[in-house]
Amino acid sequence: MTDLPSQWTHEPRKILKFHPGSKVADVDPNSTPGYTGDKDGSEEVQAERNERFAGLQEMLYANGKSGDNRSLLLVLQGMDTAGKGGIVKHVVGAGDPMGIRYTGFGVPTEEERAHHYLWRIRKALPPGGHVGVFDRSHYEDVLVVRVHELVPQDVWEPRYDEINAFEKELADSGTTIVKCAMFVSLDEQKRRLAERLDRSDKYWKFNPADIDERLRWPDYQEAYQAVLDRTSTDHAPWFVIPCDKKWYARLAINELLIEALKGMGLSWPPAGFDVEEQKKRLAQA
Amino acid sequence: MTDLPSQWTHEPRKILKFHPGSKVADVDPNSTPGYTGDKDGSEEVQAERNERFAGLQEMLYANGKSGDNRSLLLVLQGMDTAGKGGIVKHVVGAGDPMGIRYTGFGVPTEEERAHHYLWRIRKALPPGGHVGVFDRSHYEDVLVVRVHELVPQDVWEPRYDEINAFEKELADSGTTIVKCAMFVSLDEQKRRLAERLDRSDKYWKFNPADIDERLRWPDYQEAYQAVLDRTSTDHAPWFVIPCDKKWYARLAINELLIEALKGMGLSWPPAGFDVEEQKKRLAQA
Repeated sequence: MTDLPSQWTHEPRKILKFHPGSKVADVDPNSTPGYTGDKDGSEEVQAERNERFAGLQEMLYANGKSGDNRSLLLVLQGMDTAGKGGIVKHVVGAGDPMGIRYTGFGVPTEEERAHHYLWRIRKALPPGGHVGVFDRSHYEDVLVVRVHELVPQDVWEPRYDEINAFEKELADSGTTIVKCAMFVSLDEQKRRLAERLDRSDKYWKFNPADIDERLRWPDYQEAYQAVLDRTSTDHAPWFVIPCDKKWYARLAINELLIEALKGMGLSWPPAGFDVEEQKKRLAQA
Repeated sequence: MTDLPSQWTHEPRKILKFHPGSKVADVDPNSTPGYTGDKDGSEEVQAERNERFAGLQEMLYANGKSGDNRSLLLVLQGMDTAGKGGIVKHVVGAGDPMGIRYTGFGVPTEEERAHHYLWRIRKALPPGGHVGVFDRSHYEDVLVVRVHELVPQDVWEPRYDEINAFEKELADSGTTIVKCAMFVSLDEQKRRLAERLDRSDKYWKFNPADIDERLRWPDYQEAYQAVLDRTSTDHAPWFVIPCDKKWYARLAINELLIEALKGMGLSWPPAGFDVEEQKKRLAQA
């Protein structure tokens, strides 16, 4: 039934799924739920699972070319240094650029601010056959926006329901949504930020505002708790990813993507033409 | 000066560059200009050069984040089965999805047809710091359009100059353009099309129209000759890539990308903040 590597004692999509009532404060970012292996050997597993993902991603793309409008959307949320970029590079990056749509959502531009907050999100949705990746997302509009009170509560408060309705619409139209809340510990974040300040090839990844955000940690924890409590739905559940061990987070999210693609029940699309007839034509051409 | 693998006796950017007066009919798609190695061992070279490209691509991206608006644009043109998709997957795919912008240009949509032919091209240009890949491009507007007389000659004829002016504008605004004309032989194309008809996991790559296009081979050769003759400029030269050996085409284009990135003289961008001050802030945060 499953081709999960033997190091997994539990399916990531089950053991990492957010359960109502769970508390963000109880997440241990240094844990490796469901996985018995350690860093040694993880590269080999990762390489094999990268291939598996790439194969399924190609099959999704093939179906898209043949008119299937289903797609996959990976939503990555997490504090600075949680490892969102690493997931993009080392997990999603195993796929074919032809079928991957990456979008990073930063501070909204003037044009974006002049629109509804979902406007830029809708524009970036993956077309049929594609894997979309949101590096931050519409959830910023109930995270940073809430923490910094960028709009009043009566504006952000209705967004949770609005987001649920939006994602329901997406799911109903054929998009499988995989939402990952990536948790890094305060200590590990400090180490990672310090590394960015110690290495000149990492300066570009550092922003003084990251420290300001770090000082709002409890506010963000509260905002993340609200996101998980209010937007974990059957059609778009949240997965809680412990991220102090980068190798674990990558393996885990890789499996979530594989499981989501397998869940689509894909196969190679049939020929949209008469194969024998085309063989004859080709022989003469 | 150069870190070219020792199998290269000539720099690809020199030996593959289209020279005025050269004839498309004289290209040997099965040749491996400048490279003394063969398929055995090419995978190892490719893996190392993928890493090299990825490192430079990251550095370009880092500079883009720091306000540098330079970018790289790879333009892939070639007959069906020439291997454009393989370049995207196996060469460009080594880069980080965060910094790669892939666009495939098919038959124009109704909206695209309602605009100037460069409208959809401009929309897809890579932002600063990004590597853009055009899988087919504005050159379709002087290739398929010319061969099939989709517009009269007095409409397509001025496009060569227009394209040169467009690319000059791009180059002047910081985009390094690498244009690859990928040549596959008639025999090899037949083998590759036959494979797509023999394997059910390849049907999706086949289109009966590919055979129609194949029958127009001489017309396309003429149209490609005109493209090379009239749009090989100092600011955006064409490179002629023999593609019957996929491993060679990939190695060659990989080197062209590396050379283009090295030509930008990139280094890690300096910190846009006071490093010591931020270290102090972090220590207290």
